Amino acid sequence: MSPAALAFDLGGTELRGALVEAGGQIAVHRSVQTRAADGPQAVIGQIVEMGAALLAGQPAGSVLGIGIGAPGPLDPQAGMVIAAPMLAGWTDVPLAEILRGSLGLPVRLENDANAAALAEWRFGAGRGVRSMVFATVSTGIGGGVIADGRLLHGRRGLAAEIGHMTITESGERCFCGNVGCFEAVASGTALGRRATTLTGPGDGSLLRRLSGGGDVTARHVFEAARTGDAQALRLVETEAHWLGVGLANLLHLYSPDVIVVGGGLSNGFELLAPGLRSTIGQRAMAAFRDVPVVAAQLGDKAGLIGAASLVFESDQ
Amino acid sequence: MSPAALAFDLGGTELRGALVEAGGQIAVHRSVQTRAADGPQAVIGQIVEMGAALLAGQPAGSVLGIGIGAPGPLDPQAGMVIAAPMLAGWTDVPLAEILRGSLGLPVRLENDANAAALAEWRFGAGRGVRSMVFATVSTGIGGGVIADGRLLHGRRGLAAEIGHMTITESGERCFCGNVGCFEAVASGTALGRRATTLTGPGDGSLLRRLSGGGDVTARHVFEAARTGDAQALRLVETEAHWLGVGLANLLHLYSPDVIVVGGGLSNGFELLAPGLRSTIGQRAMAAFRDVPVVAAQLGDKAGLIGAASLVFESDQ
Repeated sequence: MSPAALAFDLGGTELRGALVEAGGQIAVHRSVQTRAADGPQAVIGQIVEMGAALLAGQPAGSVLGIGIGAPGPLDPQAGMVIAAPMLAGWTDVPLAEILRGSLGLPVRLENDANAAALAEWRFGAGRGVRSMVFATVSTGIGGGVIADGRLLHGRRGLAAEIGHMTITESGERCFCGNVGCFEAVASGTALGRRATTLTGPGDGSLLRRLSGGGDVTARHVFEAARTGDAQALRLVETEAHWLGVGLANLLHLYSPDVIVVGGGLSNGFELLAPGLRSTIGQRAMAAFRDVPVVAAQLGDKAGLIGAASLVFESDQ
Repeated sequence: MSPAALAFDLGGTELRGALVEAGGQIAVHRSVQTRAADGPQAVIGQIVEMGAALLAGQPAGSVLGIGIGAPGPLDPQAGMVIAAPMLAGWTDVPLAEILRGSLGLPVRLENDANAAALAEWRFGAGRGVRSMVFATVSTGIGGGVIADGRLLHGRRGLAAEIGHMTITESGERCFCGNVGCFEAVASGTALGRRATTLTGPGDGSLLRRLSGGGDVTARHVFEAARTGDAQALRLVETEAHWLGVGLANLLHLYSPDVIVVGGGLSNGFELLAPGLRSTIGQRAMAAFRDVPVVAAQLGDKAGLIGAASLVFESDQ
């Protein structure tokens, strides 16, 4: 194997680790359920154990360093997780320093959305551009921005919190306390909520049949829309509208060469694309209208590959 | 005089030129009314004439180059004015190349808001920070962003078109065709329009007395607010709310160390500041709430000083 990086993708439900080669290929891959409720020490124990297992048997010097993507807000410069809503007790945890001590390799830490953005830029849908916006649309909406050839960090590495940009006065209250956040109206959660409100258990709708009568999710909406279900198609249209309003803002703010959409909602990208293009066509100034908006290519491997690329590109 | 730059600030109403020293001091300064209606050739003739006059008598080699700030959208890399709404007939004008030919010096071209941002960063309210957002709030709202130690450009240099970020569904239609643009609800024009609508000619209001019965402007609102006029104070409150919603977005998107507010509305900054802080306190995530929001320091000289700094810092 060529020189590799030890990469981790630390999520609230799953911890993944891998050895990743410089070309972005994942050589060995592991995952466990994150012991999120048990506090930082338990989770760090899981990371160290997985790391040791992945490093076992690798020739000395063949693994250049450790890259780790974790939930923000975090400070990549300081290697510090500032707070992680999905992980109990993670406040100002000097994760990079701890792992360096335990695993004996240099460590780079990055916000998970930034890591995924790096991966899509280097190896995925954003290859070859100078400026890129990566929007990951799932439960919430996160972002990572490549600005003029490098990752945009800003103060404390907190740039590109795109989910909490206000775009409207309508919609449900966001978990952050505001009304009108991009995330509150355009996330997968928002789409599922609208679908659940629109229908009722036992109402005979395709959406409720697909959900077994329970809450409808974005996945059910896409499944129903693909069969031509009128309710689902209208929900997709509304979703594409809100997503388009937010993405049009990002065009004006960052002027990327391309917008890459990842996360769970990118599974329905082909359904959303016409509405997205139409909203952007209406709302973006002329100079921004021809910027491509495309689906991410690396799926749920983006986090790991991006974490590895932190090791290979020390200027990021 | 120490080595200097020949700087221009090309506006729709006024063309300014100056010799500026490396420390940001303006040594010689001129201005004329821009012959905006007469097309690019006439205006370029004005620039060349003013440049030749400013250069006359300077020792050879003492002026290092030309920096020019002009209305966007423009492409700084190509030295090209793409379109300038306030200047008739300016479409794809290779301004940098033309001036280099006529004046015999290297030329750097930059969007005027970016030039002013550079000036505030180097010599004004943003000295010493790594990341800064400059918002210029006047007739419209423009922006310039310093991201991790350099000017943010993006594709074709079009980043930071902050005025056309959608933040609401209310307010008047923006000149760009949309509803809810930051500029449409928070510019000086929007403030003046609200004041004009709220009052009527001859209604005895202080605002209409200050405006001589005609349309009320932002300046009249600030003047009345300073005397404690209740109508004006409410207008200031509404203005601070909208400005705060937009600036809170910019905190999440760029994570600057400081936001610098320039343009005509910064003349009422001390009136707007409490409302701004309160809106940002409500709408920004905790990690962003302590970022200072301050008034610009260089006033209408920022454009010239920033244009000059393009010459002194060739990496921008």
